[in-house]
Amino acid sequence: MSLLVTGSIGIDTVASPHGSVDSVLGGSAVYFSFAAAHYVPVRLVAAVGTDFPAEFRKTLEDRGIDLAGLEVREGSKTFRWTGKYAGDMNEAETVAVELNVLAERGPTVPPAIADSETVFLANTHPTLQRELLAQVTAPKLVVCDTMNLWIDNERDSLIETLDKVTGVIINDAESRTLTGKAHLIDAGEVILAMGPKFVMIKKGEHGAMLVTPEGPVTIPAFPTKDVRDPTGAGDSFAGGTLGYLTAKGQHDPQTLAHAMVRGTVAASFTIEDFSLGRVKNLTTDQLNQRVDKFLGMLRFE
Amino acid sequence: MSLLVTGSIGIDTVASPHGSVDSVLGGSAVYFSFAAAHYVPVRLVAAVGTDFPAEFRKTLEDRGIDLAGLEVREGSKTFRWTGKYAGDMNEAETVAVELNVLAERGPTVPPAIADSETVFLANTHPTLQRELLAQVTAPKLVVCDTMNLWIDNERDSLIETLDKVTGVIINDAESRTLTGKAHLIDAGEVILAMGPKFVMIKKGEHGAMLVTPEGPVTIPAFPTKDVRDPTGAGDSFAGGTLGYLTAKGQHDPQTLAHAMVRGTVAASFTIEDFSLGRVKNLTTDQLNQRVDKFLGMLRFE
Repeated sequence: MSLLVTGSIGIDTVASPHGSVDSVLGGSAVYFSFAAAHYVPVRLVAAVGTDFPAEFRKTLEDRGIDLAGLEVREGSKTFRWTGKYAGDMNEAETVAVELNVLAERGPTVPPAIADSETVFLANTHPTLQRELLAQVTAPKLVVCDTMNLWIDNERDSLIETLDKVTGVIINDAESRTLTGKAHLIDAGEVILAMGPKFVMIKKGEHGAMLVTPEGPVTIPAFPTKDVRDPTGAGDSFAGGTLGYLTAKGQHDPQTLAHAMVRGTVAASFTIEDFSLGRVKNLTTDQLNQRVDKFLGMLRFE
Repeated sequence: MSLLVTGSIGIDTVASPHGSVDSVLGGSAVYFSFAAAHYVPVRLVAAVGTDFPAEFRKTLEDRGIDLAGLEVREGSKTFRWTGKYAGDMNEAETVAVELNVLAERGPTVPPAIADSETVFLANTHPTLQRELLAQVTAPKLVVCDTMNLWIDNERDSLIETLDKVTGVIINDAESRTLTGKAHLIDAGEVILAMGPKFVMIKKGEHGAMLVTPEGPVTIPAFPTKDVRDPTGAGDSFAGGTLGYLTAKGQHDPQTLAHAMVRGTVAASFTIEDFSLGRVKNLTTDQLNQRVDKFLGMLRFE
């Protein structure tokens, strides 16, 4: 029951119609970890620069996240992202990005955590995803994310990565770009044919769809008005999903559908505040109460 | 347990990426009636011209729809609509429209069916909706639809109509135009403040949302690849929803949520073929099987 995530750690500056924050903790691996840690211990593999604030490290440590794989690289600077949301806030506009340490070599998986059973490869260059995966001894469940940058420019490498994973978690627009299919069930089936055993397609405020050889399952998003900052929603979804799957130790279609509910609820908390504002001190009881509320909404007996 | 629908009957010509049909039976009242007739007898109030084909009348009669309120107007022609769908087929492009009888005075509710308990006012001029409603003696449940044309050009009249109905069934874009709110829960709450006790917002392939004072409930669409022609999906949704509510004789939030499931499943059949191709001979057993399949997908116990 061990879960390893590789991805970015960022220092984010974000503005939305509901406020703004400057230089706060962010990044795919961070949002993933906070969601997954409700279910299983999380091992984080990522690189930051020497400018990474001590208080950010403490935030991760306080949540019990294993930082053996957090590389603080001398002479490098941490990834920084500035984004803003407008209108219905469905998509971020990137105002500025400093890749910094992300433009260098990838981080290394320390031998002590190379025995991890579940691996989440957050969005990064698909070749780097395979290099990271190759350092894990015998993973039982491997899931990756990706983005349009790699779909457009590194398609061959991405397809090679997709052939090595158990599942893919991807958003609707990305699934369409990857497959050329407008209909999401078609897109999911084309991705299945590339190798993965399951595909979860994130649809933002419209929920998520699971596609397996047994057919599609769709669920709505948790209905909420409290959307202050969507940053990290997708990675929180992945974290809740893979945390649950790792705790269950199986990933049959029914368990995958259950896991998707957990991912959806995890994301619903993340978007209620900037950065980790809402999820930092979220208790597992509070999380489970919302899972129950969500399932109650979908109970039609 | 009596359900009256007023709306259009059309002769439709439709093209989609999956084929085309010429001069087939369509119209909001027709799609509504075929969906609702699985639950309760349906009384149709609408006007057609003398060009209305005998076989179309027979199609309605064969389904057991009460045509006492079907006015065949001498010297008039039936409403005709030509539309096409492209890409993801989420929106119809109107290629040609001949209002014909729809541009004349509205139809009359015959005294014999003026005792109807449930009334659905399909999309038409909001003043005409009120005139039609005024002819029903003591309705217990009144629901209306509308469209951007009236929201933009007849806003005061529409608001007057909204104050006289129990509920509204509207699509997402219309709810945003009507309220100026981007977020659908906000939009639903603004509409509630205009008078209705509930709002159902149709989101096409993304499902539907119910908004009542007790809070929002969202459900996904029934996941299907077999989308040949979306025409009539919204009116089928309304028909399945109001047929179920009329049969139940109540419209508390929980029953409304159940009804929304029935509407969703009704629409999922309509879109599988052009015109009434799929729903004309659909049995209630087949309908209920899909309701069970859909509820099974949402069962997470």
